[in-house]
Amino acid sequence: MTGDDGVLLGIDFGGTKMAVGVADAAGRLLARERVPTYAERGAPQALDRALELAAKLVGQAGGPLAAAGVASPGVVRPDGIDLAPNVPGWDRLRLADAVRDRLGAPVVAVDNDLNAAALAELRLGALRDADPGLVVGIGTGVAAALTVRGAVLPGHHGAAGEIGYAVAGGPWPGTMLELDFSGRALDRLAADLGVPGAAAGLAAAAASPGPARDALTARVDELARHLVTCCLLVDPQRVVLVGGVAGSDLIRGLLVERLAAVLPYRPEVVLSGFADDAALLGAVLLAGEAVPAVS
Amino acid sequence: MTGDDGVLLGIDFGGTKMAVGVADAAGRLLARERVPTYAERGAPQALDRALELAAKLVGQAGGPLAAAGVASPGVVRPDGIDLAPNVPGWDRLRLADAVRDRLGAPVVAVDNDLNAAALAELRLGALRDADPGLVVGIGTGVAAALTVRGAVLPGHHGAAGEIGYAVAGGPWPGTMLELDFSGRALDRLAADLGVPGAAAGLAAAAASPGPARDALTARVDELARHLVTCCLLVDPQRVVLVGGVAGSDLIRGLLVERLAAVLPYRPEVVLSGFADDAALLGAVLLAGEAVPAVS
Repeated sequence: MTGDDGVLLGIDFGGTKMAVGVADAAGRLLARERVPTYAERGAPQALDRALELAAKLVGQAGGPLAAAGVASPGVVRPDGIDLAPNVPGWDRLRLADAVRDRLGAPVVAVDNDLNAAALAELRLGALRDADPGLVVGIGTGVAAALTVRGAVLPGHHGAAGEIGYAVAGGPWPGTMLELDFSGRALDRLAADLGVPGAAAGLAAAAASPGPARDALTARVDELARHLVTCCLLVDPQRVVLVGGVAGSDLIRGLLVERLAAVLPYRPEVVLSGFADDAALLGAVLLAGEAVPAVS
Repeated sequence: MTGDDGVLLGIDFGGTKMAVGVADAAGRLLARERVPTYAERGAPQALDRALELAAKLVGQAGGPLAAAGVASPGVVRPDGIDLAPNVPGWDRLRLADAVRDRLGAPVVAVDNDLNAAALAELRLGALRDADPGLVVGIGTGVAAALTVRGAVLPGHHGAAGEIGYAVAGGPWPGTMLELDFSGRALDRLAADLGVPGAAAGLAAAAASPGPARDALTARVDELARHLVTCCLLVDPQRVVLVGGVAGSDLIRGLLVERLAAVLPYRPEVVLSGFADDAALLGAVLLAGEAVPAVS
């Protein structure tokens, strides 16, 4: 963050909500706004509305725009996005180009949303003093990110952390973990059980013993099984939970209990201190780190 | 490896076999020998015999001993070893002290055996040009090691890679993966099925369709499930299989097939080029890197 003037823009695209933030050159947020994604209406309208909101906030902050950072689900390539099934058409977006062209951003940095959240935890949050660190995102989908020696691990194809594709349930090859446990999966489970209020309603109903509790517990078991494997592989000092579903005290409690029951070395498990803003803050950090150094 | 003279000693303690090697100051192996562990007779006799063999080989090489490196299953602490259940009493050994005292080694470096194997792959083998790298050991037990940006990841408690403790099979908390899939677990499975020749006999019998094939496939499914999660978390460029069971073409083929079927990004999967010597070579490298630099 060496830009002497201009503002930094961060955009966090989520399967349910999109967040836009504008920060000064030092990365301090000046303004932030959140709008629904309306995933079922497809990707182009979501991108359009996010960019309109971004243009408005940059204008209000008095510009000029020094750099933009973008966080997106999936694996972001220059000409498209892989592994982002929750918004139809998202795979065909050229996010960096769109932000550059529509907002006149001189530099655009794009990364996976969980990697952006992990960057925020590493620089500003719960992973500042922990190594290795594991970030687990349970929002519309399920994903993770790994931090090692002060950097987020991208993986060979930029696809590290995509644990939503893990093999869950029953005989091989079972189902995808994300179809079993994620905000969207819990919404469907609530509907199947006739519990009103989608995932949040299910978590509320599961506070007392009964079918909702049993069904939710079985799903948590499956997520826990995979998080145990992740923790065994990495032996993280701290695990940071982010995303809407992770905010449920009940679900978080069940997860922590399961990890503690089987892991020989227990990491600390904490909820992100950034509420829903971890990926947005990470996007702003991406922008700040992308500003060319002033000589 | 900056020692001008003296030899380097490497010892690899395994649940089935122990290997001792002596190398010149540049790390070139001068002599190597392998003896059975006789795990069921306990840890002290195994340690005694390994140290006797080491003293003999160092003497034959003409000494003096510049440094020793030791690879052991489990998590090695100065006053004991955790998570090494396959040799009774191993948990109470003070390995570094024993090697220092009995062999007069001026410097002793001790690490987990899979971490040592990963160091050998990183410096001399299949991970020289791959990042991140995943080493999966299937020998008496099951474990892994992760390499990131040129170094083996130790984990916060030195316990990274202990995937043998993963939650396998059936309703939570199921069984430990290592009880389901490892050399020892396959030995038991062979006995249960009345197949002679332990794990190797089972792999041979499973070459044709039938009960042995079905039973082995179900076990491979469970290991594959956890390796898929590890690969999703890390997105490794290359996975290196080490250990006696990994040498089975049938088992390796089944594993590769399963990873390819579900992973969106497939790592290369290769068999270690070091046959049974990866951890021993790693122990020698540990010794070489522990020699104080000559100024």
